[in-house]
Amino acid sequence: MTTAKRDTYTPETLLSVAVRVFNERGYDGTSMEHLSKAAGISKSSIYHHVSGKEELLRRAVSRALDGLFGILDEDHARVGRAADRLEYVVRRMVEVLIAELPYVTLLLRVRGNTGTERWALERRREFDHQVAALLSAAAADGDVRGDVEVRLATRLVFGMINSIVEWYRPDGRGVSEREVADAVVRLVFSGLRRD
Amino acid sequence: MTTAKRDTYTPETLLSVAVRVFNERGYDGTSMEHLSKAAGISKSSIYHHVSGKEELLRRAVSRALDGLFGILDEDHARVGRAADRLEYVVRRMVEVLIAELPYVTLLLRVRGNTGTERWALERRREFDHQVAALLSAAAADGDVRGDVEVRLATRLVFGMINSIVEWYRPDGRGVSEREVADAVVRLVFSGLRRD
Repeated sequence: MTTAKRDTYTPETLLSVAVRVFNERGYDGTSMEHLSKAAGISKSSIYHHVSGKEELLRRAVSRALDGLFGILDEDHARVGRAADRLEYVVRRMVEVLIAELPYVTLLLRVRGNTGTERWALERRREFDHQVAALLSAAAADGDVRGDVEVRLATRLVFGMINSIVEWYRPDGRGVSEREVADAVVRLVFSGLRRD
Repeated sequence: MTTAKRDTYTPETLLSVAVRVFNERGYDGTSMEHLSKAAGISKSSIYHHVSGKEELLRRAVSRALDGLFGILDEDHARVGRAADRLEYVVRRMVEVLIAELPYVTLLLRVRGNTGTERWALERRREFDHQVAALLSAAAADGDVRGDVEVRLATRLVFGMINSIVEWYRPDGRGVSEREVADAVVRLVFSGLRRD
């Protein structure tokens, strides 16, 4: 028999439990009962902090989205040649993905069944568009190859970066965040082949 | 009220219905009842063709795996400089992924809850190792950059290729298979930046 923990959660620490459960069971497959069990507090204690699981989802994906959109406001993303700004954004995307791994993982798995999920998908598309615009500008400058269509290139680069959530584990035993970011920047901008 | 269709399925056509349902609901979330409804035939008619849903899964992921491993037996994958063989394999991976889209999609979503899923994961790892070995050989020849660790580079390249299942729709309105394959080969080997 488990005894309920005294509720010492803040909205922030409760969020990290919820995100773990959402990533394990899927958002649709998670009930307030599952969250209550995982947190070790009653459902009414959870309702003391948040209005329900959709609010937890909104807070979680907001954290991932704020991290990603925050990149675009940084100086190196705003000043300089488009190709250099794009390189900076690609590196920072890897860093944010790793720093906010469970939150970005959840964001990438959102499907669109609820209002919050549709809002998150819309925000993701907006971020993609802003990065695609940077790639277009770099192509217009002649710094980026013109023989791969911008939207297709953006999709493939995002595909490479987003796939990191499938295997990266921040346990200190594998490759470091820095090695992953360096590798992505090298492959995306210069490719595998040695000149 | 729906009337049951006369069972005109072959194991092959039944498989394509099953794969669609597995991809929509997830393999774990699919029951024989769901398959029976989607196919419009009774469960006992399905059992006439296959022993159950795990056999359908095995046939489906085998089709994807046979397609992928088949690439490694093709002449251009076996003869020539490692870097050229690698480039050929990358292009063919995109082609097989698109030609067998629902089957490869299912393979990439396999999680490891059943014996068949664990076997599929093991075969995927074996394929990854063979491509990584080709990349190692190309690096040893000096044709491929040495400053990205081989396993990490393999993961990132597979990440880019596998992400195609998330957005590619073979409806003739978007980019063609050829454009996608060209784009992947260009990005993977030469990167975005114009020299």
